[in-house]
Amino acid sequence: MTQTKIPNRMIYLTRRERFSAAHRMFREDFSDEKNEEVYGQCSNPEWHGHNYELFVTVKGEMNKELGYAINLKKLKKIIIEHVIDPLDHKNINTQVDFMRGKLASTENIAIAIWEVLEPQVRKEGVELHCVKITETENNFIEYYG
Amino acid sequence: MTQTKIPNRMIYLTRRERFSAAHRMFREDFSDEKNEEVYGQCSNPEWHGHNYELFVTVKGEMNKELGYAINLKKLKKIIIEHVIDPLDHKNINTQVDFMRGKLASTENIAIAIWEVLEPQVRKEGVELHCVKITETENNFIEYYG
Amino acid sequence: MTQTKIPNRMIYLTRRERFSAAHRMFREDFSDEKNEEVYGQCSNPEWHGHNYELFVTVKGEMNKELGYAINLKKLKKIIIEHVIDPLDHKNINTQVDFMRGKLASTENIAIAIWEVLEPQVRKEGVELHCVKITETENNFIEYYG
Amino acid sequence: MTQTKIPNRMIYLTRRERFSAAHRMFREDFSDEKNEEVYGQCSNPEWHGHNYELFVTVKGEMNKELGYAINLKKLKKIIIEHVIDPLDHKNINTQVDFMRGKLASTENIAIAIWEVLEPQVRKEGVELHCVKITETENNFIEYYG
Amino acid sequence: MTQTKIPNRMIYLTRRERFSAAHRMFREDFSDEKNEEVYGQCSNPEWHGHNYELFVTVKGEMNKELGYAINLKKLKKIIIEHVIDPLDHKNINTQVDFMRGKLASTENIAIAIWEVLEPQVRKEGVELHCVKITETENNFIEYYG
Amino acid sequence: MTQTKIPNRMIYLTRRERFSAAHRMFREDFSDEKNEEVYGQCSNPEWHGHNYELFVTVKGEMNKELGYAINLKKLKKIIIEHVIDPLDHKNINTQVDFMRGKLASTENIAIAIWEVLEPQVRKEGVELHCVKITETENNFIEYYG
Repeated sequence: MTQTKIPNRMIYLTRRERFSAAHRMFREDFSDEKNEEVYGQCSNPEWHGHNYELFVTVKGEMNKELGYAINLKKLKKIIIEHVIDPLDHKNINTQVDFMRGKLASTENIAIAIWEVLEPQVRKEGVELHCVKITETENNFIEYYG
Repeated sequence: MTQTKIPNRMIYLTRRERFSAAHRMFREDFSDEKNEEVYGQCSNPEWHGHNYELFVTVKGEMNKELGYAINLKKLKKIIIEHVIDPLDHKNINTQVDFMRGKLASTENIAIAIWEVLEPQVRKEGVELHCVKITETENNFIEYYG
Repeated sequence: MTQTKIPNRMIYLTRRERFSAAHRMFREDFSDEKNEEVYGQCSNPEWHGHNYELFVTVKGEMNKELGYAINLKKLKKIIIEHVIDPLDHKNINTQVDFMRGKLASTENIAIAIWEVLEPQVRKEGVELHCVKITETENNFIEYYG
Repeated sequence: MTQTKIPNRMIYLTRRERFSAAHRMFREDFSDEKNEEVYGQCSNPEWHGHNYELFVTVKGEMNKELGYAINLKKLKKIIIEHVIDPLDHKNINTQVDFMRGKLASTENIAIAIWEVLEPQVRKEGVELHCVKITETENNFIEYYG
Repeated sequence: MTQTKIPNRMIYLTRRERFSAAHRMFREDFSDEKNEEVYGQCSNPEWHGHNYELFVTVKGEMNKELGYAINLKKLKKIIIEHVIDPLDHKNINTQVDFMRGKLASTENIAIAIWEVLEPQVRKEGVELHCVKITETENNFIEYYG
Repeated sequence: MTQTKIPNRMIYLTRRERFSAAHRMFREDFSDEKNEEVYGQCSNPEWHGHNYELFVTVKGEMNKELGYAINLKKLKKIIIEHVIDPLDHKNINTQVDFMRGKLASTENIAIAIWEVLEPQVRKEGVELHCVKITETENNFIEYYG
């Protein structure tokens, strides 16, 4: 197949995956009243949970021979192995290694996922661009490293 | 205002509300292995959670004077007071009165919500037609009484 | 083409169309206070508006020669000509013939659309089954005639 | 666990799955012009395709011991094995056994899926209630057997 | 709670709110024909309306003690008080102070909302990053100041 | 109409359009096994297809006289004429001029659409900012030139 010349330009690929998990917003050094005041009903000691949506965006130069910057199947495999399997149907406060010792806020989950994924996608020759997590249909977090 | 004659016909009104909650699928008389076998990762003893969507459908005859079968504001108030406030940001297994002693399956939640709402909407002159609950974007339960 | 025998079974086809319109909920024989009490902010005398979604469902027997009960292109044409063109970017209270003299509730819009469409789709050999209108993402009306 | 008495009532469970496939609407005994006239651009001889969404609804009595009418994992497995694997990333006209000799309309796909799934879900003690397929965001087919 | 060290990195938080309103696109110094030519059916003198979706994105450094850059509850309160309450169920051309003397285009609404929100979120220690408004499912405006 | 002074600021307008098409991922110089290994089921020789969603974002300075940077109707017309009509209900590998000799990946479609649209929107006084294409609900490509 004769490919027309394409300059090396940046392509952004985003993969969506989902996980359902329990969490609780609180600080151990706050009283229950203080936790309630700061985090509202999200500090419920008996937990609550969400269907989180995760959008991972990587960027890289087109591989003109293959028609992509990174094979979508590879990206999907990385995300499921390193992020979804550890988080899905888990308690984020008590059962997720990369969240140990951290407040289980969506902000902290996004940062932790960045740190887990960044070296993995770099190995595949692309850069991690954005980790986006929606907690409900009305709010989401984006982190760009 | 002169209303043109409209025969008494059934109108169906659906209100969507949302709640985020923790739950766990399990039977006390099952071993952990048996619970895992039947309910899979949904039996995680440390809980997990979802953003549930609730669709309540009522049906009734048109009130030709007022242009509706039931005032949407009233229906919304009933659902929030009797269903959403008790469920939102709660642990369905341990903190919801109308789920006491029941397996916290979406099926049982739908039946329990039916039983809570049915007398309330009947008082307003309409019939409860359907309680629908989506647990994830890929599965939902409907109950018609 | 040799068709395998299929018994005459009912097929339901739904077409979605959208219209954006202004409206106001009020009765002329109510005071402003009474309208406000019954219809809330929907009675604003300066109007407000919505992106309505319309779902028209027809049912009919399979035409085994052609692979459908009614040609989707025909159904679409009927809905656009008789419903969308008269409603889209209009004031429902003042500019829509089939809503004259009626309260501009979603309930009444659904009934009026039924009356407009029912004879049109019957001419095409199928039955009108349901007119569904969503007013916001949180509430919708269904009418089955 | 002490279960409160629940009468045997019907529960409806819906599972959504997706498949991407190519198809073409045409009859071999029609000329190209006739196919174009009846099926429009859907008769393109070089094929086109869709992201189809499939909603399978089953109904059954609650199993009070287990909290459901049918285990969602089982239903999912049946749909993937018997419907999604044969259809996903395939040419519906040429590569799908249960569509051989049939016009590749969404109507016929829904009927064929019904015939494939009905005996499978019956074996699990529930009834098939509805097969719904969305072809685009603007049209869908429902079949109730 | 011992927090692991996190460098001060930018976190983006987006809140979605919705409002339903009437508007009209027109210039007083244009004839009706000229307004129709430029703005099409959007210039209907009897108004039309939309369900607008508003996405407000702020960015800020993580507060490592609290697990966020800004408390979502505060952001929500600011948006509702300063933007949603003045716009929801209103006529944008005639009833909204911050739109006085401006063409009621989505572009101008986005710019006006930016000007209203920017000082409010700055007081909370974060920066306004983007105001996005969807007018229909097929078009939206973004403004970055 | 007296316009309040607005500095010349960048406004971003996005238009969504949709197309349904067939495609196949493969290289002629790869064996069937190699194509299968690299592209998986997407290399099916009998084609498959998708409902693609296209989001075209342009940016430009506000025209204070008219209330926008570019007339949405013009942008829509350009996209439909130059992109949607050539792609919709077509085979991307064999029937689309601007994809000749290119691997039919979403990445290449996005780059090709950029090259088609860039000169067209520049003529209208705005800049092309982003071409985004969703292939399924779980993955999308963005290209910024």
